[in-house]
Amino acid sequence: MAKNDWGNSIFPIVPGHEIVGIVREVGSKVLKFKVGDRVGVGVIVGSCHSCDNCSNNLENYCPEMILTYSAKYTDGTTTYGGYSDTMVADEHFVIRIPDNIPLDAAAPLLCAGITVYSPMRYYGLDKPGLNVGVVGLGGLGHVAVKFLKSLGAKVTVISTSPNKMKEATENLGADSFLVSRDQDRMQAATGTLDGIIDTVSAVHPILPLVGLLKAHGKLVLVGMPEKPLELPVIPLVIGRKTLAGSCIGGMKETQEMIDFAATTQDNT
Amino acid sequence: MAKNDWGNSIFPIVPGHEIVGIVREVGSKVLKFKVGDRVGVGVIVGSCHSCDNCSNNLENYCPEMILTYSAKYTDGTTTYGGYSDTMVADEHFVIRIPDNIPLDAAAPLLCAGITVYSPMRYYGLDKPGLNVGVVGLGGLGHVAVKFLKSLGAKVTVISTSPNKMKEATENLGADSFLVSRDQDRMQAATGTLDGIIDTVSAVHPILPLVGLLKAHGKLVLVGMPEKPLELPVIPLVIGRKTLAGSCIGGMKETQEMIDFAATTQDNT
Repeated sequence: MAKNDWGNSIFPIVPGHEIVGIVREVGSKVLKFKVGDRVGVGVIVGSCHSCDNCSNNLENYCPEMILTYSAKYTDGTTTYGGYSDTMVADEHFVIRIPDNIPLDAAAPLLCAGITVYSPMRYYGLDKPGLNVGVVGLGGLGHVAVKFLKSLGAKVTVISTSPNKMKEATENLGADSFLVSRDQDRMQAATGTLDGIIDTVSAVHPILPLVGLLKAHGKLVLVGMPEKPLELPVIPLVIGRKTLAGSCIGGMKETQEMIDFAATTQDNT
Repeated sequence: MAKNDWGNSIFPIVPGHEIVGIVREVGSKVLKFKVGDRVGVGVIVGSCHSCDNCSNNLENYCPEMILTYSAKYTDGTTTYGGYSDTMVADEHFVIRIPDNIPLDAAAPLLCAGITVYSPMRYYGLDKPGLNVGVVGLGGLGHVAVKFLKSLGAKVTVISTSPNKMKEATENLGADSFLVSRDQDRMQAATGTLDGIIDTVSAVHPILPLVGLLKAHGKLVLVGMPEKPLELPVIPLVIGRKTLAGSCIGGMKETQEMIDFAATTQDNT
């Protein structure tokens, strides 16, 4: 990556946080990369490096985390994102793209991929043979199905759109598909899932999703509805169920995630 | 315990599920107890003994769990609870009361005690040195503070009632006390707790409680508000926080809980 002009004047928002490219130049203290390496940058370009989260490779939860665009960098300039020909980044926040992953296929893993992969690991939804649901088949849900299948889960896609069934089951390999408004089939699936990754960012009912969980099941929210959802407490209590959040992932885990993707047969 | 008259006619509700007594008679196949033993019965008097939950000592999550009162027993009769002189119970659901715990002090442990103890163990709030909050200082909250102190936690009681401060800090040994309506002090305590046991059964705001948690903190609900609460999703996601439920405990853990209480210096 070549040097960029990180001006501090008033600027238009330049988004983009699933960035891939080839290293064009390295600073004198750079150890991890050399010119010509295939690399990527995700959601984060900086953090404090000294808090508990940073010490535990969880830069994504560092209170001083710097986002890849529209944030203030350590020198007071503004971060510009990835919609540009060149970019400068601290090597700590640069990911190595494995040789067998095409750059365009790697890009979405740097945000969508790690956002769904990290909670699978943290909340124990990565064990072969588990029944795991994915709510919403957009950018995140699509990647979630592929990771869960690679981890050996039996995957159920839950969507408001019946016309996503073919994509879910035929193209992505999901084992089953539930239309969330089909009350009969939702009812029949009560208590069948060990966990759910819910990727929906709109306000939506979670009681039916909690109902799909077995006792001790986990519903993990990775979307961010701006308004509060309705939280049904009794089903959580009587089934010892968990409702939790997760937000992207740390740099070590992001590298691990993309290395894992490279080991799967189909990583496109 | 002597034989009881478990009639199946229309009956008044006879509550009571924190029951203690002395064994007066045992059946011919009873192995665990003999006449004269000090024992107790909690919330459960039956379960299927064959499901996954029963196989994992989690009779409290068995779909066929039988409650101690106002439920149907296996023979079709109704369970009458503990407000009586005598009671018959299956030995599997009977707890041995350690010699150094007075019977009257043991009774509340059989529901309130296990209800707060089980989530401390399951959700990892049992590590010495953790900062743990207890919301509500009623029957459950009172016992929660004592268990957490015995486990080595630094305990913060959170209550709507300023007049409970003396009880919390002087009588129960809580390390600090927060009035939940005192916005300045609640704000100052933002991000300080590793976990919270929330014992409140009324509808109440959980956003301020989620705010008290550190990143990766856990808010465990053991009360059961009948109406849904407002679930703030964004703070859960950006802090990878967990909101979960827990309901009493299995028989093995209930015995473990009361044995643990017996090892503490002050078990009254």
